[in-house]
Amino acid sequence: MRKSIITLLTDFGIKDHYVASLKGVILGINPHCTLVDISHQVSPQDIREGAFILANTYSFFPRGTIHLSVVDPEVGSSRKPILIVTKDYFFVGPDNGLFTLAAPREQVSQVVALTNKKFFLPSVSATFHGRDLFAPVAGHLSLGVKPGAFGSELDSWMELNFGKAKIKEKGLVGEILHIDGFGNLISNIRKQEFSDFTGDQPFVIKVGTRTIHGLKRRYSDGSRNELIALFGSGGFLEISVREGSAQKILKAKRGDPIQISTKFRAPNPK
Amino acid sequence: MRKSIITLLTDFGIKDHYVASLKGVILGINPHCTLVDISHQVSPQDIREGAFILANTYSFFPRGTIHLSVVDPEVGSSRKPILIVTKDYFFVGPDNGLFTLAAPREQVSQVVALTNKKFFLPSVSATFHGRDLFAPVAGHLSLGVKPGAFGSELDSWMELNFGKAKIKEKGLVGEILHIDGFGNLISNIRKQEFSDFTGDQPFVIKVGTRTIHGLKRRYSDGSRNELIALFGSGGFLEISVREGSAQKILKAKRGDPIQISTKFRAPNPK
Amino acid sequence: MRKSIITLLTDFGIKDHYVASLKGVILGINPHCTLVDISHQVSPQDIREGAFILANTYSFFPRGTIHLSVVDPEVGSSRKPILIVTKDYFFVGPDNGLFTLAAPREQVSQVVALTNKKFFLPSVSATFHGRDLFAPVAGHLSLGVKPGAFGSELDSWMELNFGKAKIKEKGLVGEILHIDGFGNLISNIRKQEFSDFTGDQPFVIKVGTRTIHGLKRRYSDGSRNELIALFGSGGFLEISVREGSAQKILKAKRGDPIQISTKFRAPNPK
Repeated sequence: MRKSIITLLTDFGIKDHYVASLKGVILGINPHCTLVDISHQVSPQDIREGAFILANTYSFFPRGTIHLSVVDPEVGSSRKPILIVTKDYFFVGPDNGLFTLAAPREQVSQVVALTNKKFFLPSVSATFHGRDLFAPVAGHLSLGVKPGAFGSELDSWMELNFGKAKIKEKGLVGEILHIDGFGNLISNIRKQEFSDFTGDQPFVIKVGTRTIHGLKRRYSDGSRNELIALFGSGGFLEISVREGSAQKILKAKRGDPIQISTKFRAPNPK
Repeated sequence: MRKSIITLLTDFGIKDHYVASLKGVILGINPHCTLVDISHQVSPQDIREGAFILANTYSFFPRGTIHLSVVDPEVGSSRKPILIVTKDYFFVGPDNGLFTLAAPREQVSQVVALTNKKFFLPSVSATFHGRDLFAPVAGHLSLGVKPGAFGSELDSWMELNFGKAKIKEKGLVGEILHIDGFGNLISNIRKQEFSDFTGDQPFVIKVGTRTIHGLKRRYSDGSRNELIALFGSGGFLEISVREGSAQKILKAKRGDPIQISTKFRAPNPK
Repeated sequence: MRKSIITLLTDFGIKDHYVASLKGVILGINPHCTLVDISHQVSPQDIREGAFILANTYSFFPRGTIHLSVVDPEVGSSRKPILIVTKDYFFVGPDNGLFTLAAPREQVSQVVALTNKKFFLPSVSATFHGRDLFAPVAGHLSLGVKPGAFGSELDSWMELNFGKAKIKEKGLVGEILHIDGFGNLISNIRKQEFSDFTGDQPFVIKVGTRTIHGLKRRYSDGSRNELIALFGSGGFLEISVREGSAQKILKAKRGDPIQISTKFRAPNPK
């Protein structure tokens, strides 16, 4: 028995019938596959947020997993429906940048435009390709249909420009990429960039009007209400508050800058 | 191996232990069935909303799927627990109108009052029939127990009156049946009714204080913040705003009228 | 085929990638296990709430179910990761009191400190033991690995002090233990304690500034907006309002007292 896993990531929310319709369609094609929700709470039409969430979790799934991701503000327009095949995974969804942070980290072997109507629902609505096109393609893929059968190969797919941390005069400057449900502020500053920049010099981290000295290892290392910085489980620099929300304390939003500086006045030891 | 699918639709929310208890009970009876959540975010005790969500998704599941639906404000009272058997599906839940929009679209072959205590949990609470009665019945049904074994047949089941669109002097008048998570306003005006009414005449759609000219095909066909009308994936006329919420812009609520008129002043072409 | 069930209870929320990562890790170890969400909406770091939700549902799952519960404010610190083995279930999670209300109701046969790194992910982060340590342990356990293989036995595990109802001069005094999604106030007063205290005397129930006379059997027994008391499906005294929220009407919060008194002025019959 082929036991395939299909994950689902969408901005459909969990109140309406949309997600269940995708699942019904898939199970109608392959009743033996295992469906796993990644998230359906991506902010409506927020491709970047979807890309971030997918990138943080897709690689924890076993080889062969099909990642079906639908954040699709241009549904029904000329944006292409695609399948990206990598060494270990399949990514199915709209070609709008949703796979920017995940696919390039894998060895991409094939990109296919989904055009073969044989693998769609008999009637494809203009408004719900998740159900009528992407879900059935994922279902057939999980049965072992070869990627090439779904359409013709493409030379490229769309990548979005996610800001990278940069070294400027005032220091290493990154930005907040994501704010999680605990209110932790996750930046785009990776551990390696950080160490390369700071070396063994002392440093401060500036975010909003606040300055943080040094790094902690664990969320519980701070005292209550203390703003701390640490490297989170995704390998990015995070700002956090023990048993509180850094987002609320700093009134931070996505895109806000985070700055690492090795030139600063040392705090006055009391 | 019998691989049955049971869907769950409730107003239990996703924070509490209620939904998991249903699932535990079902898996205790049939560990091989596949459980799929439709929604647990039906507004508390809102039978009409539950009926709408179920009607929009049940038919995308494969033949033989058991739809277990529990929005049950009168739990423990004289309202009957029922099983409706149709050509392709089973519906299990309280007889309070929850199946009004789904079951009549199928060929109903049998309606059974769930009275055989053999298929309930040993002790049935007065407050949680979802766990103690409906879930075990669904579990046994998924093992192949014949519908007649659960109780005696009924001649009828409860249907709620959902307002239908009507032709009045000012035009075809329907109402908002559902507001989805994107803020799209879904009316009770079906595509066929709409075309029968408008024929090939030009028309306007009036909702709140706003007038919309013509139909679009896709959500992305409007310009940003433009109020548009289109037929959604469920076949109903919808009011939508590109990358925004029609609900917020119109401060609309369920039950608000939507009016189609073929007699109107044409907009002044500039 | 071994068909194991693993439940998940966390405070990770449902927007982020955290829950999916746990599931991916588990399915990578045992693709045949069945994953069931209990809740991921435990209030952040609220161990007591997690303990309550778990206690209300774990026993409805079949024998052999693995309950993986991660509400873990002290992640990465000296709090131990543990496995509690009982006659019918396995509990995996941090040793911080999360199992206080569930495990003692079962026959505990073994408590193991999870120290054998062979069963963890190759690299364990300091911030996400759910993914790196607890999930892989649950996965291996579901494959039949013996509890003793995960580490050495412990003599005890941490239990939190949940206030018990007490008999005082003014009556039997308990408190609100949990407020569910319907706004029902669930107290820590069990049915038996209640009957032992009231015997066959008339009684009143005082909560906030309100007094309730007698008990109902069902949520639907009250008139609209009437505050009622009843024993809920978990066996605790609950305060409820028909088609409304007792929490909102009483502006109640967890920890508020609920008092049963057999000495009171009878209401004036009009």
